[in-house]
Amino acid sequence: MRVLSGIQPSGQLHLGNYFGSIKPNLEYVGKADESFFFIADLHALTSVRDPKELRQMRFETVLDYLACGFDPKKATIYAQSMIPEHTELMWILSCIAPMGLLERAVSYKEKVEKGIDATVGLFNYPVLMAADILLYDANIVPVGRDQKQHVEIARDLAQKFNHFYGGGTLVVPEPEVRPEVAVVPGTDGQKMSKSYGNIIPLFGSEQEIKKAIMGIVTDSLTANAPKNPDKCTVYQIHKLFLSEKESNKLADLYREGMAYGEAKKKLFETSMDVFEPMRKKRAELEKKKDYILKVLQEGAAKACSVAESTMERVRKAVGLR
Amino acid sequence: MRVLSGIQPSGQLHLGNYFGSIKPNLEYVGKADESFFFIADLHALTSVRDPKELRQMRFETVLDYLACGFDPKKATIYAQSMIPEHTELMWILSCIAPMGLLERAVSYKEKVEKGIDATVGLFNYPVLMAADILLYDANIVPVGRDQKQHVEIARDLAQKFNHFYGGGTLVVPEPEVRPEVAVVPGTDGQKMSKSYGNIIPLFGSEQEIKKAIMGIVTDSLTANAPKNPDKCTVYQIHKLFLSEKESNKLADLYREGMAYGEAKKKLFETSMDVFEPMRKKRAELEKKKDYILKVLQEGAAKACSVAESTMERVRKAVGLR
Repeated sequence: MRVLSGIQPSGQLHLGNYFGSIKPNLEYVGKADESFFFIADLHALTSVRDPKELRQMRFETVLDYLACGFDPKKATIYAQSMIPEHTELMWILSCIAPMGLLERAVSYKEKVEKGIDATVGLFNYPVLMAADILLYDANIVPVGRDQKQHVEIARDLAQKFNHFYGGGTLVVPEPEVRPEVAVVPGTDGQKMSKSYGNIIPLFGSEQEIKKAIMGIVTDSLTANAPKNPDKCTVYQIHKLFLSEKESNKLADLYREGMAYGEAKKKLFETSMDVFEPMRKKRAELEKKKDYILKVLQEGAAKACSVAESTMERVRKAVGLR
Repeated sequence: MRVLSGIQPSGQLHLGNYFGSIKPNLEYVGKADESFFFIADLHALTSVRDPKELRQMRFETVLDYLACGFDPKKATIYAQSMIPEHTELMWILSCIAPMGLLERAVSYKEKVEKGIDATVGLFNYPVLMAADILLYDANIVPVGRDQKQHVEIARDLAQKFNHFYGGGTLVVPEPEVRPEVAVVPGTDGQKMSKSYGNIIPLFGSEQEIKKAIMGIVTDSLTANAPKNPDKCTVYQIHKLFLSEKESNKLADLYREGMAYGEAKKKLFETSMDVFEPMRKKRAELEKKKDYILKVLQEGAAKACSVAESTMERVRKAVGLR
């Protein structure tokens, strides 16, 4: 069984990225026979126009993953742009993709409404994503609920392709929506997102992290009043770090009238305990630029051999070989 | 100066292809410092769903060009699908191509009206075409009037790219519309086209060619009546083979009352004189499959080195390297 996950290079990591994507992604490594992680730098071109920023994002994504425990001996990480077969398959799939399929895709409209340029690339986004998936004969694609439609489009195109050109050429993937991954709230209680300015950084300085946590919005109950943990953003975030037993214990403290200041201090301490070793590892790795590039290149070489063998089947099937 | 021409693999060649495209294309070889010819097999995927047909078309296109006098020592011929940089650049350009640019493109609508599937590939067609052109730093792109908009889109995207990412990365090409290439009439007087069933084949059997020419529709003037050559399809076609002096002489015969049967016989003779050596050459080459493939592979190697150097500039400019 091969599991494939895409990583959107996104700049400074926050708790939302960690609990919503990195941690569950890394949990697949070991469970699956093979895990492939690709950095979606070609997709990023639809919104990033600064070459320096894109280079930095790609580099830091590998750095972040390694710091968070990614083991290049157990899984494969590479950038989309390092494997020319991604766009080659994208073109071939686009020739069987009805316009209506993309016209019904919701993410294009949503992104345009958010102010991203309405380009052909943005419109074609789901077809490139289908190629990303189908190129690696992925069986399982773990996704957030908002990405499920993309895997469905990939399924649809794989089935169409097999129907037109011969069954079994492409593996039809299964989406695996992770219901257990709750939306991670930001400091204002909304979904944590850079664009909302409500993040708690993962690898910021101690000072930055403290400031963000202390700034979490709470209600105005007095210090000793009993509190409902389920209505408290501090608790919602803290819970993500804890086992069920630990979070029940923490909830009791809320009911017994722990002050919000104290709750925030506890969250800060937990957060430092968990992320401090990762932060240290990241700082060390940051100096080893050659090592980071080697991880990417070795990952790309491994990915390329899988992609190439899929493309040989595809090219033969459509008549390009 | 580098001249680039795309060849649509189209199956059985006819006089319309020869005079409208092959002959003028070959006339550029020698005039330009470098001539690149690519077989648009990736584009063909938007309408050809039979792998055998596509393979055959690609092979026969090289065969046709060699038979018509293409010299692989003087120019470069290759298939689009052999150079992965075509789709890579296509994706990058798509990320700066406004949707409106393609929505205004006329060829998509025309093709859909003709019954070709409304796929994403068909919609993206002009962006791949822009990549085909810009990848080779082409200065001049000779096109028919109906293809002019495609070169304009390529110009537009090159200028946009240079504006966003740094001037001079891409060469802005010039279309060169050939006004002298008249539309070649078919046997019924309409434009010669396979889809109208009015063609005179280039490499058919003597019998087929004779039948097609003898079937050209004329008016009902009697054998000895003086005739207006400009109103005669036989003359319109015959003229394409002749110098001005020769066609004036032929026109005089019309005015002197040459019978249409005689005119057709003359066209058949000229046609055999011109195409017989090509037909022989083609029959010989058809047996040398390895040679044909070698021509393509050597062409692809040459094209690839140009494409790769352009892509290195492009990747650096956008931040993929």
